[in-house]
Amino acid sequence: MTTPRRILALAEGRFSPLKSKTANAALRYLPEEVVAIVDSTKAGQTAAQVLGYGGGVPVVSTVSDGMIFRPTDLLIGIAPPGGLLPDAWRDDIRFALGHGLHILSGLHTILSDDPEFSALARTHSVTITDYRKIPPEAEVIPVGSWKSRRAKVILTVGTDSNIGKMTVSLELQREFVRRGLNADFVATGQTGMLLRGRGIAVDSIISDYISGCIEREIDRSVAEGYEYIFVEGQGALTQLAYAGVTLGLLHGSMPDALILCHQPTRTVDNYGSPLITLTDAIRLHTEVLRHFRIAPVVAIGLNSIGLTDAALADAVHSAEAETGLPAADALRSGAGRLADAVLNALAPSSAHAPLHQETH
Amino acid sequence: MTTPRRILALAEGRFSPLKSKTANAALRYLPEEVVAIVDSTKAGQTAAQVLGYGGGVPVVSTVSDGMIFRPTDLLIGIAPPGGLLPDAWRDDIRFALGHGLHILSGLHTILSDDPEFSALARTHSVTITDYRKIPPEAEVIPVGSWKSRRAKVILTVGTDSNIGKMTVSLELQREFVRRGLNADFVATGQTGMLLRGRGIAVDSIISDYISGCIEREIDRSVAEGYEYIFVEGQGALTQLAYAGVTLGLLHGSMPDALILCHQPTRTVDNYGSPLITLTDAIRLHTEVLRHFRIAPVVAIGLNSIGLTDAALADAVHSAEAETGLPAADALRSGAGRLADAVLNALAPSSAHAPLHQETH
Repeated sequence: MTTPRRILALAEGRFSPLKSKTANAALRYLPEEVVAIVDSTKAGQTAAQVLGYGGGVPVVSTVSDGMIFRPTDLLIGIAPPGGLLPDAWRDDIRFALGHGLHILSGLHTILSDDPEFSALARTHSVTITDYRKIPPEAEVIPVGSWKSRRAKVILTVGTDSNIGKMTVSLELQREFVRRGLNADFVATGQTGMLLRGRGIAVDSIISDYISGCIEREIDRSVAEGYEYIFVEGQGALTQLAYAGVTLGLLHGSMPDALILCHQPTRTVDNYGSPLITLTDAIRLHTEVLRHFRIAPVVAIGLNSIGLTDAALADAVHSAEAETGLPAADALRSGAGRLADAVLNALAPSSAHAPLHQETH
Repeated sequence: MTTPRRILALAEGRFSPLKSKTANAALRYLPEEVVAIVDSTKAGQTAAQVLGYGGGVPVVSTVSDGMIFRPTDLLIGIAPPGGLLPDAWRDDIRFALGHGLHILSGLHTILSDDPEFSALARTHSVTITDYRKIPPEAEVIPVGSWKSRRAKVILTVGTDSNIGKMTVSLELQREFVRRGLNADFVATGQTGMLLRGRGIAVDSIISDYISGCIEREIDRSVAEGYEYIFVEGQGALTQLAYAGVTLGLLHGSMPDALILCHQPTRTVDNYGSPLITLTDAIRLHTEVLRHFRIAPVVAIGLNSIGLTDAALADAVHSAEAETGLPAADALRSGAGRLADAVLNALAPSSAHAPLHQETH
């Protein structure tokens, strides 16, 4: 395609700072591509009025209303409550396909497997991209390519899920690129895949293949010459439903360094367990990879949503005092401090520094 | 069904101590049900001549030849090389369905999804049991029922996969039953499911649901009144492809005690990494569950295949000296010593004993 992509993002009834994650990430990281948001409950406002960022991108009532912005793609920018495709969305998707829009979807429901949608897509010569559809070639087991890998791999982990791992990985990759370094972002979830244009939705793959498919994605970036590869983390080792995914990512990436993501205001995780402390989380992640390599946690990525500047400063101080590692909210304070920590840890002269961490 | 099941086990070209795991387990644990084995390369021998156990069960050349033993079920007792269903097996399955046999299959290929097979099954009023077909109701996330669970859950873990976890769990459950205790076995793989008649093939479920589906299986046994629940372990925390499954099992079962399974002669795991030591494996498993509870390793289950009696005695001594825990090969020496260790660790008076283990 030579036509630049123009995204109409469906976020009906959910467009807000916390409930429309994929649409919001598109506004933040693909600002030149998003032309309008669909949410009848917020129609007439701008993205910035609703989110605090996203500029003047308009919110419209219906997909039909959004057509005046000449979109090329309809992005399903939210997840339906309960996981089933609502009938109203079927109408939107049917309308979009009928008007020549491509579909970008992170739904668990695979839209391209729907006979009506796939027929419409064929008729109108458009594509349906299902980020959660796993290609058969991704179902592989790892070969251990990390042992001879020269590129450096940095994985984000966290004290919980939905805590900012994708954002920290993206902000660090962008900061590295700003510094003239050859850095890539490996997407492991549907939002990251939308932003990067490729990746693998690890929460949709049979567990046997998680480590293999992520090794394969990293190897692809290595083969393209990237020297620093930021892998988007998922879940948490202490999170009951997603820990297997997290461990598969740790094994598949065999990272050179970890960034531990944390939200200071969170005390209970998304599954109702008390949040693990930073100290315990560092020990746990180090322990889990110890049989293979020392993969040090080199910095703390803070998610300070809802905190005042003064409270953020306190949180930074507290995290640094507890762990002895640099801490920062990359969105509010920039990724510079975290990037310095990564480069410092990966520098040849500090090859043994990580071992000090075991004394925590 | 009131007719006792009479199993004809397909193991074509692979019937041997190490290559026909499901057929062999059926011979060992369902001896009254297996009427013949199909393997043209061993036809004319008995199971005992090939395996060293299994008694006089005959090996025949073809499924057709096996019909003289009046089987009611054809068990696919081996996995096809490469994972795809060989054409020759299609003929066998077609023949079996056409002659009124039920099919029991642990293949990744779901036979009941095959239009020809499902039509034949309908015509001949027989069933196709696909152990790896995941029922939608198994796709659940955990609710944390372990927190109020009164039954004791014992999970087998290991220094590698395919090292004897199912056998140790089964032998312990049988030993508990022999002692008059109300003990169940929760199957997590196709062979265990054949033996128990239910369970969940955790290697075939989307990773998000591993801990939830295993909690559900345990809750089912708890609801039926079982007081000791032996959960069949899978994989290993240090095994690159299956570690996510292992962690999901740990989280889903939140065990009261762990048995660590190990093969003294194995130095490299099934993915080419050096085998983790018993000491490191105990620390790793304890660490991984520490955020939730202290789940002590209470005994070492040894797999002494290929060892002389003297070498087994040495291996027991060595494992006990390294870990301070009782060790035994349950198949060769009986499960009594391991059962004593479990009961001792779970006894109210030794509620704090597991904590001593942290000094290792």
